[in-house]
Amino acid sequence: MNDAHNDDILERLADVLNERRHGDPDHSYVAKLHQKGLNKILEKVGEEATETILAAKDAHLGSAEKASLVSETADLWFHSLVMLSHLDISHQDVLNELARRFDVSGLEEKASRVKDH
Amino acid sequence: MNDAHNDDILERLADVLNERRHGDPDHSYVAKLHQKGLNKILEKVGEEATETILAAKDAHLGSAEKASLVSETADLWFHSLVMLSHLDISHQDVLNELARRFDVSGLEEKASRVKDH
Amino acid sequence: MNDAHNDDILERLADVLNERRHGDPDHSYVAKLHQKGLNKILEKVGEEATETILAAKDAHLGSAEKASLVSETADLWFHSLVMLSHLDISHQDVLNELARRFDVSGLEEKASRVKDH
Amino acid sequence: MNDAHNDDILERLADVLNERRHGDPDHSYVAKLHQKGLNKILEKVGEEATETILAAKDAHLGSAEKASLVSETADLWFHSLVMLSHLDISHQDVLNELARRFDVSGLEEKASRVKDH
Repeated sequence: MNDAHNDDILERLADVLNERRHGDPDHSYVAKLHQKGLNKILEKVGEEATETILAAKDAHLGSAEKASLVSETADLWFHSLVMLSHLDISHQDVLNELARRFDVSGLEEKASRVKDH
Repeated sequence: MNDAHNDDILERLADVLNERRHGDPDHSYVAKLHQKGLNKILEKVGEEATETILAAKDAHLGSAEKASLVSETADLWFHSLVMLSHLDISHQDVLNELARRFDVSGLEEKASRVKDH
Repeated sequence: MNDAHNDDILERLADVLNERRHGDPDHSYVAKLHQKGLNKILEKVGEEATETILAAKDAHLGSAEKASLVSETADLWFHSLVMLSHLDISHQDVLNELARRFDVSGLEEKASRVKDH
Repeated sequence: MNDAHNDDILERLADVLNERRHGDPDHSYVAKLHQKGLNKILEKVGEEATETILAAKDAHLGSAEKASLVSETADLWFHSLVMLSHLDISHQDVLNELARRFDVSGLEEKASRVKDH
């Protein structure tokens, strides 16, 4: 799986989320979250954070538990993307902030002088 | 900012995190987190989730608060990447799970038939 | 409302929770939580903590929001009592820990020399 | 340990917290929390909820872990009492809400007809 593939995932997911924001709440989970409002979206972020933590504590048990952790982390990232979309903030701002801190901007290799967080 | 750039950020960050996992805990925050263990890493995930939620509730107040939300969300994603690294799970598995659910795999355009979450 | 009344509430609630632990899951929410197990109970603790935090952020808005905060805090305490019961830990141990830290054991008045947390 | 003792703990703790609210932030942790404001207090509620959940997941390991869960739950209740105090809400309102739901008001025994949550 190449880099372009990864990028497509996050970029396209953000696009899909923005499209669905104003969709029909009866047919779209994303539109329904936006209709219910910020508190509902943040409840989901908190809920998925807790479920991620519980899944991580059980991840040593086996492959089913590891798969569950992947699923819960996906839920956590997903709902935090919905939160950003609801507040008109681009996910790109978050990626840029991570790049800034870690000097992994992708424009040039600076591995020899990366600073830690 | 193009797609390759975005992708580099997440991919390179994951690489940096894996490199630093076995670094010197006295000089690397990431190495220190791994040394302290899973509970410490998960405490940080929970802490950053709470701070993200609080920042989102204040995001309507102005641009400083919006910048704070971007920073807290970056912290949340960052510590969830450290968690995955600690448990030998690739961030790519999480991206693949998101792609699977939203049919945004990037290999072909399927916008007309995307299913919701 | 006098002290005996307050005490009855927490003491009796703990008693009721212990009684219902082995009740019929089809008729008792408490029995159902125990049947589903520790992870389900802890998901609820995390969920109610998030809802308490969101309600607290909205408490300045008016009396309905303050009532909502009271209700969410009750949910948080309630589910933490269920958690203790599930793990065979008495709520009294938690009260004793609080008393120890704050020197408010109730056996004698030491207000003039209470130490802070 | 009798009922009056238990009650003294919660009642006196609430009294102590209200007294210290306007104390010297340099000498009182409680006064310092109030000075830092609602977000700081809620960060602590979220933090302690996460630590409670992690301790509960480890409680099966032994008595040290059970003691740690008692301590984290005390921290969670403590910081939720500070939150209520900061917002001028009495802990008694939360106890009354619990009593109302569980019909354990202490004024009379109604064990035969208690309704579940």
